[in-house]
Amino acid sequence: MTRTLYDLALADEAVRPSPYCWLVKFALLHKGLKFETRAVGFADKAKYPDPAYGKVPVLIDDGVMVKDSPVILEHLDRKYRERPLAATAGERASAAFYGAWLASAIYPALGPLIMLPLIAAAASEDRDYIRRTREARFGKTLEEYANVPDAAQRLESALAALAAPLGAYDFLGGREANLCDYVVMSPLMWRRSATSAELYETPKPVAAWQERMLDLFGGYARAAKRA
Amino acid sequence: MTRTLYDLALADEAVRPSPYCWLVKFALLHKGLKFETRAVGFADKAKYPDPAYGKVPVLIDDGVMVKDSPVILEHLDRKYRERPLAATAGERASAAFYGAWLASAIYPALGPLIMLPLIAAAASEDRDYIRRTREARFGKTLEEYANVPDAAQRLESALAALAAPLGAYDFLGGREANLCDYVVMSPLMWRRSATSAELYETPKPVAAWQERMLDLFGGYARAAKRA
Repeated sequence: MTRTLYDLALADEAVRPSPYCWLVKFALLHKGLKFETRAVGFADKAKYPDPAYGKVPVLIDDGVMVKDSPVILEHLDRKYRERPLAATAGERASAAFYGAWLASAIYPALGPLIMLPLIAAAASEDRDYIRRTREARFGKTLEEYANVPDAAQRLESALAALAAPLGAYDFLGGREANLCDYVVMSPLMWRRSATSAELYETPKPVAAWQERMLDLFGGYARAAKRA
Repeated sequence: MTRTLYDLALADEAVRPSPYCWLVKFALLHKGLKFETRAVGFADKAKYPDPAYGKVPVLIDDGVMVKDSPVILEHLDRKYRERPLAATAGERASAAFYGAWLASAIYPALGPLIMLPLIAAAASEDRDYIRRTREARFGKTLEEYANVPDAAQRLESALAALAAPLGAYDFLGGREANLCDYVVMSPLMWRRSATSAELYETPKPVAAWQERMLDLFGGYARAAKRA
């Protein structure tokens, strides 16, 4: 039984920024499943397990190809029933809400802070590809996209909402980390991988939780290389 | 055994807008506990069970006075262990997050839409009190506070985040309503009580969930009178 996760890498292949790949890595770790990762760049789709699909994460689980992080998570929870990613349908519903909150409150502030450091740390052959695809998606140049003068302040104020659960509980999942924690930590690993620069100040209980998340699974996330 | 909840009322004593009182009513209903409510106005604290405290909700539970909605909820879950408001610590942590999200994303848009209709529907002896206390809290006149031209649009876009869990589950609690549902529904009952006017468009899966919430407990919330 082998499990291989195709994982997006920067110029230094050990640096793996993709939040969607991070979500899958956290899920595999949570379930105690062994896996190896294979670094792929942004542009060279020929190296992807399904070049026509052209995206990661893709997991090859004992010869079966599973694509797209929500599908991979569902696959893992269906195939490996011990240690479900969420204990109840309520916890699963909450993870979906955290995802929507990230999309509306976190990414619009975090993206502008991260994009230029990320592109600078990408492999030279990937930079044009990243710029072209993101500029098409955002409808503006990356420099315009990055020019949000109050991005750090907006991010700090959005992250403060996490202080409510994390002031009372060690994890968003309560006493132990669950899918909600992995969903929220994944973009923060994107941020952490892309640059070591201090970009904003993390509210205290959120920073303490982040340290706990970095410590999980033998410090897997803490050991992850940063650009 | 008698249970009496002191509940804020408008000019028509049958109209009960307070979201914090709604949260307690939902909790009592969820647990299947019989209770009566006693209407109190905003200004006349002499009628409150603890005039010096001067706030509601206050629950008199078999002679024991319990104040403040989080404390009342904790009291109910400790004293009446069947039908806990949340099944896991994770669900409880999520309810805290929904509360913080309401404070940062919903109230700042809902408040400006509601405040003037609410004050118009309040008892004449309460209007000055409401205005004075809210203007001190907001640091501006209520007319300035209400003047947020894109409040409806901001509210619609904030509510859209709920479509993620509610597109996949009947309730924020998953298959059944839990504390998360009551926390989020309470300000929507505030809005519903204060005025019958259409103030904004509720995203579809959220509107469908709202109907389900109104139907719970024999249609208790649906039957609640509106100003």
